[in-house]
Amino acid sequence: MLAPIKFCAHCSQPVRQGVPVGDDRLRHICDACGAIHYQNPKVIAGCIPVYGERILLCRRAIEPRLGFWTLPAGFMELGETLAQAARREAQEEAQVEVELESLYTLFSLPHISQVYAFFLARMAEAKFAAGAESLEVRLFHEREIPWDELAFETVRRSLTLFFADRQRGQFIFREEDMEPDRSRFRPGQPA
Amino acid sequence: MLAPIKFCAHCSQPVRQGVPVGDDRLRHICDACGAIHYQNPKVIAGCIPVYGERILLCRRAIEPRLGFWTLPAGFMELGETLAQAARREAQEEAQVEVELESLYTLFSLPHISQVYAFFLARMAEAKFAAGAESLEVRLFHEREIPWDELAFETVRRSLTLFFADRQRGQFIFREEDMEPDRSRFRPGQPA
Repeated sequence: MLAPIKFCAHCSQPVRQGVPVGDDRLRHICDACGAIHYQNPKVIAGCIPVYGERILLCRRAIEPRLGFWTLPAGFMELGETLAQAARREAQEEAQVEVELESLYTLFSLPHISQVYAFFLARMAEAKFAAGAESLEVRLFHEREIPWDELAFETVRRSLTLFFADRQRGQFIFREEDMEPDRSRFRPGQPA
Repeated sequence: MLAPIKFCAHCSQPVRQGVPVGDDRLRHICDACGAIHYQNPKVIAGCIPVYGERILLCRRAIEPRLGFWTLPAGFMELGETLAQAARREAQEEAQVEVELESLYTLFSLPHISQVYAFFLARMAEAKFAAGAESLEVRLFHEREIPWDELAFETVRRSLTLFFADRQRGQFIFREEDMEPDRSRFRPGQPA
């Protein structure tokens, strides 16, 4: 699970993999300066931008899943709140100003060491455009959602919950774990 | 906000701080091999272990906030779910087996680039002990909570919400942002 760290970022000497004293996990350890280089899961923040009956999706201009549709979302940055990260990603990917409502879904993806957080969001006006990381941005009615061309299982699950909750008239926060789902990859599509 | 990275972990050459092409944030860039070394917020997972009317707190044996009381919590590791991390920390810090109920609080702390997640948890029996990172572990009734000796604002806020929600008979998930609160530090106590 450890990403390739070969040299110490503090002193440039080669690191080794080992279990530090008092720890029980493999870490990258620098014997020259004593530094331990920890690695931790990353957080992805995004939102479901809602305009009237429709929701906004972006078609990805970048890998992974280039050409597939996604909710605007991306890596949370240092110094941000979850909400700030979600708003920034909507601005960057869909050039849209959203008003965030509540946090809606939170997923743990242990196989890729990520935590995904999606907010419900409102668009005051239908003003949006493809950002640098999007090929296209569009509003979709429920019946128009390209279910076979969604980029990520977290997006599929959030949208599925959203339409079911909307139907019943109550949105409920969900925290769930998500295992790898190979079904989302088309034949011949690299994982 | 960038932690001290001086050398490239891939090739050992010195890195510089700069804004990569297509980006808008300072990163550590290696001109020798082209690597960009991103840094992202970390996730802390924990729980509120409940046994009957009482809840379980640990007195910290390590810095920061050595000697102060906390809920069992710690950094989420690679390959874990939020729930697995919360259970592991309860086991490590309080040697207690908890049954997690739902996620209860989620805090963004942008000033230290952390996200805190606390679950509600049930203890089937009053079996616990101080782990390596705790001086002492104890069950507390609400009236016994050492409010002036709590280690972290996230713990204080989660407990405050917990007792208020218990009073009214309904536990509601909360997602909140938290700014630095100097009041939690005693005079002469280092931040």
